[in-house]
This record gives sequence, structure tokens and C-alpha cells, in this order.
Amino acid sequence: MTNFNPSAEVERIVNFIKNTIQKYNFKGAVIGVSGGIDSAVVLALLVRALELGKVRALILPERDSSKNSIEDAKAVCKYFKVNYEIISITGVLRAMGVYRLFPPALFIPEKIKIDYAKRRWQRYPDPYVMDLKNKGDELFLKGIAYYRAKHRARMCKLYFEAEKLGYCVVGTTNKTELTLGLYVKWGDDSVDIEPIKHLYKTQVYELAKYLGVPERIIQKPPTPDLVPGVTDEEAFGLTYPEIDEILMKLDSGEEINTEKARRVKELMKLAKYRELKSLGIEDEQATR
Amino acid sequence: MTNFNPSAEVERIVNFIKNTIQKYNFKGAVIGVSGGIDSAVVLALLVRALELGKVRALILPERDSSKNSIEDAKAVCKYFKVNYEIISITGVLRAMGVYRLFPPALFIPEKIKIDYAKRRWQRYPDPYVMDLKNKGDELFLKGIAYYRAKHRARMCKLYFEAEKLGYCVVGTTNKTELTLGLYVKWGDDSVDIEPIKHLYKTQVYELAKYLGVPERIIQKPPTPDLVPGVTDEEAFGLTYPEIDEILMKLDSGEEINTEKARRVKELMKLAKYRELKSLGIEDEQATR
Repeated sequence: MTNFNPSAEVERIVNFIKNTIQKYNFKGAVIGVSGGIDSAVVLALLVRALELGKVRALILPERDSSKNSIEDAKAVCKYFKVNYEIISITGVLRAMGVYRLFPPALFIPEKIKIDYAKRRWQRYPDPYVMDLKNKGDELFLKGIAYYRAKHRARMCKLYFEAEKLGYCVVGTTNKTELTLGLYVKWGDDSVDIEPIKHLYKTQVYELAKYLGVPERIIQKPPTPDLVPGVTDEEAFGLTYPEIDEILMKLDSGEEINTEKARRVKELMKLAKYRELKSLGIEDEQATR
Repeated sequence: MTNFNPSAEVERIVNFIKNTIQKYNFKGAVIGVSGGIDSAVVLALLVRALELGKVRALILPERDSSKNSIEDAKAVCKYFKVNYEIISITGVLRAMGVYRLFPPALFIPEKIKIDYAKRRWQRYPDPYVMDLKNKGDELFLKGIAYYRAKHRARMCKLYFEAEKLGYCVVGTTNKTELTLGLYVKWGDDSVDIEPIKHLYKTQVYELAKYLGVPERIIQKPPTPDLVPGVTDEEAFGLTYPEIDEILMKLDSGEEINTEKARRVKELMKLAKYRELKSLGIEDEQATR
């Protein structure tokens, strides 16, 4: 936050996007727009880097997506004057057998469904830590397989739509999420270019304000849109400003031993389970 | 090939598999068996590393898969006494819109279909190089999107089936393929553990013989099973023994300037287009 200059940062990222797309022969860029702040910021950056006709925004909802997220995603695209397509991935997930794990509760009102899903999540003392550790009972593992399949199917669809046109896929993951493991391996982390992966979440907020992202996108609490009603900050047990302050201090070599810092360090350590990526026998020595 | 000791190598890999699975809390391993030599070797290694009940073999054919490959995959699983499941991913690919690019030629005899597909591939002077470069006309790009979607859908399905059980996904990519770019980014390269990624293809053959992989799997020409009738070696324009000899010489720092070595070096250089993986602004300096 200190020494962070949104104007210079935007210029730097825009140049990075332009140069990389040119270097690798891409004809344009595809982005998945979720209705959250990260994809709004990256969309705004793409619009500054490329001609409008070369930015393809896809909104990829599925059976369980919240209607508000879809409306927010549309609003973001309209605001930045980008043509968008809404393509449901429900059929893909159904064919993969994903919905068989948690059949629909068709005639139950929305509010009760949310309460139920939230309570199911809350029956575990610290579900985010269990998720990072690959540990849990059968129901918990089903929940993990269920939500991760959605992110991966979305990745497949983004690439399919991009590669038909010779476009690249642009990601929206930020440094805070990457550091604490809030992503799906081979899902939302799997793209060609990651324009904001060097930025902490609080810096993404600063860019959002600078780029004119609509206020309602900036104001709403960030959520992975996985368990209805559960936000990122509830999963972490800390707010983003708290986390980023600690991460920046750790970055600069400062020692911190508050309870909150210990939580951050625990999550950072556990995030290594998510970093088990195509490990070979010769990489093994290199891992912590 | 010199100094390569299959028995010691098997022991080393088996220990690696055991230790990694334990370290990351996995309850077992899922592998996709294709009928080719690489997955046969990795299956044999898994059987040596884990109890039989903890190895789950999946055969994941789709509309265009060759019947011979499915039969070979079944034969491999039976030979190593591993229970397998055959789960078609045709429905997933159909729901994703993949088959709309190349509708089925229902009433055309197999041989003519193969000739046609092969000729379509041959109309391009060096299609493998075009693929590595992300370059080509509309039809070519469609072909790229088409085959890559299949590998990615397979990855999604393997993870879905693995994560429900708390299992890891084990990959089958070898060093020759990785070095020359013969894989699909976020597809067959995206796994938890890669037991043979440090081995050249010719070394995989040596392990296959040592591990008792059925002769018919060892004898058949390796193919990515993408364009019917087109083999790996036709795509490269070189045989595996030729490639590996050159790669091993380059590895040991030897200078080679034969025509074949120049081809290998060209493919190695172009493989960097496939290595564009979630590139961030701070990684940029690190790339070649």
C-alpha cells in the first residue's frame, strides 16, 4: 500500500499484456468474468491493452451459481463496453457426474438452501485448513471434488473458446490468494497470462478504484462462490487488510508473532499441499 | 541408455511414489490408462508402490478413440491385475461444444475416415511446428482446440474421480515429450506426481521390458491418438532413438550440428510456447 502507485502500475501491466500477447503470437484474449473484483480489474486492464474486438469476455455460470454474481458480471462487461457471452457449464458438469454428488433441492426456498449449505460447512471446525491438507471424511472429500471440478471445467471451456480463435486465456488470481492457497490447482490458476498475480488483494482494490470499477463490485464481500454465503474472509478467519498487512511485513523480513500472524503463517505453510504440481523425482529435492 | 539400470531405477521411483503419497496425505492413486507404453509403465510402478486396492485405473475413451487403444488399455490393467473402469468422456465433450467443430462421419467406413483425417493433417507442411507456435488458419486452430479439449476434459475427470476418494492423480509424461512439447498444457501434464518425467522415451522402453509390460504394448508405434494414423514420430519427423541420442548428447554439453540435431533444437525452442504457464509480470524476466 505504501509506495503503491496505481497509475504507474496500470501502465506496467498494460505493457506486460501487450508484449506477452505479441511475443507468443496470440490474436486476442479470453477472460472469464465472475462478477468479483479481480476479474473486473483484469477486464479493465485488457480493455486498455487491446482493441475492444480482441477481448472476449465469458460468463460461465452453472447450476449453483448465484444470480447476483451473473448480474454483477454482466454489469462489469457492460460498464467496460466489452461484448460478453453467457455460456452455462451445467451440461459439462452433469455429464462429468459432478451434480450426482449433491442433487438439486428444487422446491426448497433459496434462503433455506443457503442456511443448509452454510451449516454443512460449519460442522467442520476449520474447513479451509482441512481443504488445504487434503483431509476430511467422505462427505468433506465429496465437497472438495464437487467445487474443484467446477473451476476445472471452467478452465477447459475458457481454453476451448480461446484456442478456436488463437486467443490466450487471461487469469485473475492475486498474490494473497496464491500465497494462502485460495485457488483450485489446474483450475483458476491455469491460464496463459496472470496480470495481477504480483498484487496483494488490497492493491487490487486500489487498482479497481483507479480504473473506475463500479462501486457495487468494490463494495461486495469477496467470495469464491462455492458454499453459498461463505466469503473468502470467513474461510481464512481474517480480513484481507489484516492478511495483507502481515504478508507485507513478512515480505520485508519483519518478525511477527501475533495470533493473526500465526494463522497467516499456518495457511502459507499448508498452501504447499496445493503446490504439489506434477512433482517429479528430480524436483523432489527442490521442495520444502 | 548408458549407465541406465532398470532395477535400481524402479526401486528409486517406487520409493518416490510411496514417500510423496504419504507426505501429502493421499489415500491412494488414480491413473488414466491409454493403452500406450507410458501409462503401462507407470501402472506397473504404482502396483509395486501401493496395495492393489489403492490403485484406481481409469480408461477414458471418447467418440474418436480407437477401439484398439481401449482393448490395449484393458489388457494392460488385466495383466497387472488392477481393477479398471471404462468411463466415456464423450458426454462431457459434447456438452462443451467440442464435437460441433468436427461432426461425426457416421456412415463412412473407418479406413476412409482415417485417410481423410490424415490427409487434412498432411495439407500443412509441418503441422507439429504450427501447433507449437500457436499459428495456423481457422481450420488448423479448430483442430488444436478440438484435440486439446479432450486432454483437458480427461484431466478434469481424473481429478474428480481421485478427489472424491482423497486419492492423487499420477501422470505418465516422459522427458522426451516434455522437452519437445508433445503434451497438452493443463491436460496430460497436469497431475500431482510424475513418476517418469525424468526419463527419456527410450529409457521408458527399457523399464517396460524390465517390468514385464506385454510385448504388444511395447511393439506398437507410440501415438497421441489425436489424428487417426498419425504417430509421435511422424509428428516429430524423427524416431525416438534418434531424438533421445541427440538429447542425451546435448545434455552432456556436446555440440551437434547434424540436420536431425537442428530439428531437435528447433522443436525444443518452440516448446517454450507451450511453457507459457500462468506468466506473471515478475516471472517475465526469468523466461528466455
